[in-house]
Amino acid sequence: MADRYSFSLTTFSPSGKLVQIEYALNAVKQGITSLAIKSTNGIVLATEKKSSSSLIKLDDQLKIETLTPNIGCTYAGMGPDFRVLLDKSRKVSHTNYKRIYNEYPSTKILVDEIAKIMQEATQSGGVRPYGVSLLIGGFNEHDQTYLLYQVDPSGSYFPWKATAIGKNATAVKTFLEKRWNENLEIEDAIHIALLALKESVDGELTGENIELALISEPNDDMLGFKGTDMSGPRFRLLSAEEINDRLEAL
Amino acid sequence: MADRYSFSLTTFSPSGKLVQIEYALNAVKQGITSLAIKSTNGIVLATEKKSSSSLIKLDDQLKIETLTPNIGCTYAGMGPDFRVLLDKSRKVSHTNYKRIYNEYPSTKILVDEIAKIMQEATQSGGVRPYGVSLLIGGFNEHDQTYLLYQVDPSGSYFPWKATAIGKNATAVKTFLEKRWNENLEIEDAIHIALLALKESVDGELTGENIELALISEPNDDMLGFKGTDMSGPRFRLLSAEEINDRLEAL
Amino acid sequence: MADRYSFSLTTFSPSGKLVQIEYALNAVKQGITSLAIKSTNGIVLATEKKSSSSLIKLDDQLKIETLTPNIGCTYAGMGPDFRVLLDKSRKVSHTNYKRIYNEYPSTKILVDEIAKIMQEATQSGGVRPYGVSLLIGGFNEHDQTYLLYQVDPSGSYFPWKATAIGKNATAVKTFLEKRWNENLEIEDAIHIALLALKESVDGELTGENIELALISEPNDDMLGFKGTDMSGPRFRLLSAEEINDRLEAL
Amino acid sequence: MADRYSFSLTTFSPSGKLVQIEYALNAVKQGITSLAIKSTNGIVLATEKKSSSSLIKLDDQLKIETLTPNIGCTYAGMGPDFRVLLDKSRKVSHTNYKRIYNEYPSTKILVDEIAKIMQEATQSGGVRPYGVSLLIGGFNEHDQTYLLYQVDPSGSYFPWKATAIGKNATAVKTFLEKRWNENLEIEDAIHIALLALKESVDGELTGENIELALISEPNDDMLGFKGTDMSGPRFRLLSAEEINDRLEAL
Amino acid sequence: MADRYSFSLTTFSPSGKLVQIEYALNAVKQGITSLAIKSTNGIVLATEKKSSSSLIKLDDQLKIETLTPNIGCTYAGMGPDFRVLLDKSRKVSHTNYKRIYNEYPSTKILVDEIAKIMQEATQSGGVRPYGVSLLIGGFNEHDQTYLLYQVDPSGSYFPWKATAIGKNATAVKTFLEKRWNENLEIEDAIHIALLALKESVDGELTGENIELALISEPNDDMLGFKGTDMSGPRFRLLSAEEINDRLEAL
Amino acid sequence: MADRYSFSLTTFSPSGKLVQIEYALNAVKQGITSLAIKSTNGIVLATEKKSSSSLIKLDDQLKIETLTPNIGCTYAGMGPDFRVLLDKSRKVSHTNYKRIYNEYPSTKILVDEIAKIMQEATQSGGVRPYGVSLLIGGFNEHDQTYLLYQVDPSGSYFPWKATAIGKNATAVKTFLEKRWNENLEIEDAIHIALLALKESVDGELTGENIELALISEPNDDMLGFKGTDMSGPRFRLLSAEEINDRLEAL
Amino acid sequence: MADRYSFSLTTFSPSGKLVQIEYALNAVKQGITSLAIKSTNGIVLATEKKSSSSLIKLDDQLKIETLTPNIGCTYAGMGPDFRVLLDKSRKVSHTNYKRIYNEYPSTKILVDEIAKIMQEATQSGGVRPYGVSLLIGGFNEHDQTYLLYQVDPSGSYFPWKATAIGKNATAVKTFLEKRWNENLEIEDAIHIALLALKESVDGELTGENIELALISEPNDDMLGFKGTDMSGPRFRLLSAEEINDRLEAL
Repeated sequence: MADRYSFSLTTFSPSGKLVQIEYALNAVKQGITSLAIKSTNGIVLATEKKSSSSLIKLDDQLKIETLTPNIGCTYAGMGPDFRVLLDKSRKVSHTNYKRIYNEYPSTKILVDEIAKIMQEATQSGGVRPYGVSLLIGGFNEHDQTYLLYQVDPSGSYFPWKATAIGKNATAVKTFLEKRWNENLEIEDAIHIALLALKESVDGELTGENIELALISEPNDDMLGFKGTDMSGPRFRLLSAEEINDRLEAL
Repeated sequence: MADRYSFSLTTFSPSGKLVQIEYALNAVKQGITSLAIKSTNGIVLATEKKSSSSLIKLDDQLKIETLTPNIGCTYAGMGPDFRVLLDKSRKVSHTNYKRIYNEYPSTKILVDEIAKIMQEATQSGGVRPYGVSLLIGGFNEHDQTYLLYQVDPSGSYFPWKATAIGKNATAVKTFLEKRWNENLEIEDAIHIALLALKESVDGELTGENIELALISEPNDDMLGFKGTDMSGPRFRLLSAEEINDRLEAL
Repeated sequence: MADRYSFSLTTFSPSGKLVQIEYALNAVKQGITSLAIKSTNGIVLATEKKSSSSLIKLDDQLKIETLTPNIGCTYAGMGPDFRVLLDKSRKVSHTNYKRIYNEYPSTKILVDEIAKIMQEATQSGGVRPYGVSLLIGGFNEHDQTYLLYQVDPSGSYFPWKATAIGKNATAVKTFLEKRWNENLEIEDAIHIALLALKESVDGELTGENIELALISEPNDDMLGFKGTDMSGPRFRLLSAEEINDRLEAL
Repeated sequence: MADRYSFSLTTFSPSGKLVQIEYALNAVKQGITSLAIKSTNGIVLATEKKSSSSLIKLDDQLKIETLTPNIGCTYAGMGPDFRVLLDKSRKVSHTNYKRIYNEYPSTKILVDEIAKIMQEATQSGGVRPYGVSLLIGGFNEHDQTYLLYQVDPSGSYFPWKATAIGKNATAVKTFLEKRWNENLEIEDAIHIALLALKESVDGELTGENIELALISEPNDDMLGFKGTDMSGPRFRLLSAEEINDRLEAL
Repeated sequence: MADRYSFSLTTFSPSGKLVQIEYALNAVKQGITSLAIKSTNGIVLATEKKSSSSLIKLDDQLKIETLTPNIGCTYAGMGPDFRVLLDKSRKVSHTNYKRIYNEYPSTKILVDEIAKIMQEATQSGGVRPYGVSLLIGGFNEHDQTYLLYQVDPSGSYFPWKATAIGKNATAVKTFLEKRWNENLEIEDAIHIALLALKESVDGELTGENIELALISEPNDDMLGFKGTDMSGPRFRLLSAEEINDRLEAL
Repeated sequence: MADRYSFSLTTFSPSGKLVQIEYALNAVKQGITSLAIKSTNGIVLATEKKSSSSLIKLDDQLKIETLTPNIGCTYAGMGPDFRVLLDKSRKVSHTNYKRIYNEYPSTKILVDEIAKIMQEATQSGGVRPYGVSLLIGGFNEHDQTYLLYQVDPSGSYFPWKATAIGKNATAVKTFLEKRWNENLEIEDAIHIALLALKESVDGELTGENIELALISEPNDDMLGFKGTDMSGPRFRLLSAEEINDRLEAL
Repeated sequence: MADRYSFSLTTFSPSGKLVQIEYALNAVKQGITSLAIKSTNGIVLATEKKSSSSLIKLDDQLKIETLTPNIGCTYAGMGPDFRVLLDKSRKVSHTNYKRIYNEYPSTKILVDEIAKIMQEATQSGGVRPYGVSLLIGGFNEHDQTYLLYQVDPSGSYFPWKATAIGKNATAVKTFLEKRWNENLEIEDAIHIALLALKESVDGELTGENIELALISEPNDDMLGFKGTDMSGPRFRLLSAEEINDRLEAL
């Protein structure tokens, strides 16, 4: 029965559902698991780099990306849709914001804009919804806080303390609910993230098959110059070595 | 049978119904309950912040928003559609009104514009209706009155003394009909709103899981400066503490 | 069988019917009854303000609206469609007429323009017909006459002496046929309108649940200034008190 | 079977028919009968003003309209479509012709343009054919002749000596074939038109329920000024009195 | 089975047919027969003027039209489509050619342009093919030759010595194949054309019910002035008298 | 089953086929056979001029056309589509190339552009693929080579030594495979082309019912002037006499 | 069942699949096998030039193309789609990049842009996905590394050490997994590529029926001039002789 409502992209079913959005969520639920954890002094984003072949060069593949120097993003679902949203998000934050206000948008404002791009694809004729959920973490300069959001194909978003999306999302979220508390520091968060991945990933964890990024203290060394009071970007990808160090310490 | 008319977004059924609008109303009826009460000296807007997980950070989530300094708005139904309507409403009140007339639109004018945006989505080809009902309360400077409107997915709107939308709308409206009278003051209205939420929300009410806003006396302290005869915005969100204080007093 | 022709908005059925228009008329026939009566010295427009709840603030709701100072309009059918047509009608009379010719369009010209807007929605691809019938009454300066028109979803219009649209249209028209004569004056017309509403409205009539407007003598006091030979608008809504006075005198 | 070809507006059926055009002709065949007769010194256009209610003010309703001072037009079928075609025809004759060539188009040229507007609605995607047939009569200055055309929903047109469209078209045309001859003068034509209407109209004929227009000698009094060698329009509607005079003389 | 491919205007059936074009050809095959014959010193175009009623004024109806002074055209099939193609053809020959090159296009060039207009209607979305076949005859100044083309709804065209289209096309072509030879002069061609029409037309042939045009020697008298070396148009319609003279001589 | 995929013009079937392209190829396979042979000093293009009636004037019909002075083209399939592609190809070579670079495009570049026009019709919404295959032969100035390409409705193209398209393509290609060798000169190629046509054409071959063009040595006499070092076009159609001479020598 | 979701180009099936993309992948899986191998000092791209006839001139056909002087590309699937993507890719690298930044895009940036073009065709209304997978290899100046990517019809891309697409992709990839190691040099890579082709190609391998390109050391001789410090393009097609030399050495 439900099938009858899936041809027209944006029609309500009698029960008030937008079926295409639910199908898009199913695309997300089949994606590789990604997770994010907020701590008192930073956010960790983590995901698995799954490889169907030993010939894939995992180290050149990026599944966690930076949107502004202080805001990062990962996803579960359809990779190409994520790439397109990345592009549109950066356009929003640079062309529509930085060039006008001379500063980057706050996490909430950027999330809101991305969510609107995703909502639009659920109401316009002839376009399908995006087949991804996003995890977006960022640091807000003005109140010195860290914020973590999950955005879904419908364009709905919520602030989270810690969350997971993709194939093992339910199990990982149950795990995170048990482990998370208000006093976590960033290294605790990394620790929990690795433990969570360990349970959801088949095979051994290594610095090569997982990807991990922090939004935490400014990385002034990444500026490439010195002697100004400008601070470096807070978003940083951990290297394979850094990940392996932590894995050993588990 | 009715199914046959749901593919084309804006077609009349033989009985003169626009079926997509009725399905959109079903989306609203599955939404979280929101309510609004008008009193002699102000309006209260209230809604539940429902959380599917203890990891959701409810305090960073806003379901009641300001449209102009003296007009506020909440909803039941699809969150992303609400976000998009918020954006369009603010554009109308600022770009299409304030920048031209150097004052904000009155509540009635703004409601009328928002309703037209929603009607358009029921008559244009290839777009679905918005899946939200809105509650919009405002203060009109010129006749010093408070006005409260409900706008539905069809774009139809009515002025109300008190009303509710969403899952428990019928029960809450029956409750409000019994409690409302012409002499209510704003604190009475808050009291009734909390009682109404108590009946419709599962579990305990706290300042964290409900959201409450007033459109009442000007909040001059929110201006951030002094010494002018300009008065502050009348829209104000109650803090969790303020809500908890009232909950204890119930 | 007829169902097969309702998907495409503007297709003829084999018998030469435009089925969507007939379905739109069904939407009108389910609307609240409105009526209008032309007399020697004015026109009365009247409608019921129906309320599904005692919490609806009927006095803030307007179902009879002014198009130009001397032309007024009411409807039966879908409220949001009426609002949109109101907007387009005013745009026609102001932007496309008054600003060009420095006077308001005559009733016939304005009705003709509105009817064309409604016809267009029956012939263009992807748009549904408007779900309203309109009653439009006006005074023409150049020949000092009053004119009353009914416009239907098809865009067809006729001049009437007195007519009704909506749920009880047939019964009310039979009543009006018996009562109307060439010598009616405006107060007679109001009297007949109230009697007609009495028969079609469930429950007691009051100044709160019915709405009544006149297009009659100029209301110079509504100009807000004096000492010019400019005359006031002929369109005027009766207040609840004025209606109650007449109801008592029935 | 034929039903299958009616959804797409402009598709040929296997037998080479454009079914929508045939359905539109059915709409014409259900319309009120109109007729036109050409005589040696003028053309008469005539139609019934049918009224579903005694409250309709027939004298304010015009079913025969002027396109240029010397060309007039009536119809059978859907009134709103006629109104829209009137508008487009006048635009053609004024904006696209008079303003360029400083004279009105000849009857043939104008008919050709109107027919092309109607043909376009049978070939463009997403638009339905017009649901009217037109009778267009005119006087051509350059060869001092009168011409009478019938234009159908397909956009096909023919020159006629006398013809009828609408519900009783077949019967009236048989009647006209018997009565028409080359030597008819305009008063004879009016006489025949009234006799023909008498047979096709239910109830008594009066100046109120039929409409009659001539394209004949110039009406210099309609110019509103004197002393130039400019001649008045040849198109003139007969008044109710003029019609009644002729009816008495039948 | 073939029915399934007729909804989409321009889809190939599995056997590689464009079914809509074949249906359009069926519309042509139901049209009134037209024919054309090329002789050593001119081309004759001929068609029947069929009348469903004695009230149709056949002498004002033109089914053979001039495209340039030396090129003429007739058709079989849907009259309104012919009118529209006439208009586009003249636009091509004047606006797109004469105004640029200061001479009229040759017959081949003009036929090629018309054929492209007709092809476009078989490949663009949402438009149906034209429901006419055309016979186009012309004289080319540069090589002093006469050329005769038939263009079909598909946009395909061929040069002919003599051909016929419409209801009796097959019979007439068989007749023409027998009669045509390389040495025909224009009067022989007229003679054969009349004989061919005699066989295909029901009832008696007269100058009123057939239409005949020549593209032959220049008609300098049609220029309307003298004393230049400019030569008159070669296209000329025969008058009813001229046709009757030839009919008597049959 | 395959039928289900033919409505939407550009949809993949489950097996990864674009069915409309295969149907278009079927249109080509029903077309008249055309062939082309490359030799050491030129290319011959040849096709049959089929006539359904002795009244068709074959000598005025061109099925092999020149694209630039040194590039020629013939086809199998739908004639009107070939005409439209001819037009677009010439536009590409003149407007988009010659006017910019002051020389004609090379054969490869022009073929690539034409192929892209044909591919676009297989991917854009609402357009059908072109129903033709093309044979394009040309001489490249810069490396003094001859190149022969076949382009199919999908837009795919290959370089050939000799090939055939249309009804008898398979048989003719088998014939050509046997006869072709690296040392063929242009007169050998003509000889083989005539032998191949002889086998595939019903009835006798004559200079009237076949068409033959060469792209070979420059035809300086076709320039129409002398005394410059500019060389004439290499593309030349053989006259009926030239063909008959060769036919006799077979 | 799955059939039902294939008409609308971009709809999700209930399980969250975009079926058209899977069908497009099937088109790729039926294509001729292509492969690519990355070594320490270069990348080799290789593919078969399959010929359905001995008359096809394989040496003029290019299936491996250069995008920038240092980036090359081959494909499996639909040739015409590859041509169109080539064109768009070059436009991106020249018009949208080189002309702005005065250098060519890096491999990653160009791959990302091409992938976005392919993703867009999976989300826009009325367009089908591209029916090709691409192998893109390039040298990045800034970090002196070689990068190899595979892009699929969905727009998803991955970095590879060595990979294959098309009919025998699975078998070839298994072969490559066994042979590939970190220390391969370019000549080893060519050797492995030829061995892999040998297994997947029917019949003997020769320099004529396979195509091989390197992205390796700069080919300064291809610059066409000397005495600057500009280095030549790194992309180079091997000649038939070079391939044959290596084949003999197998």
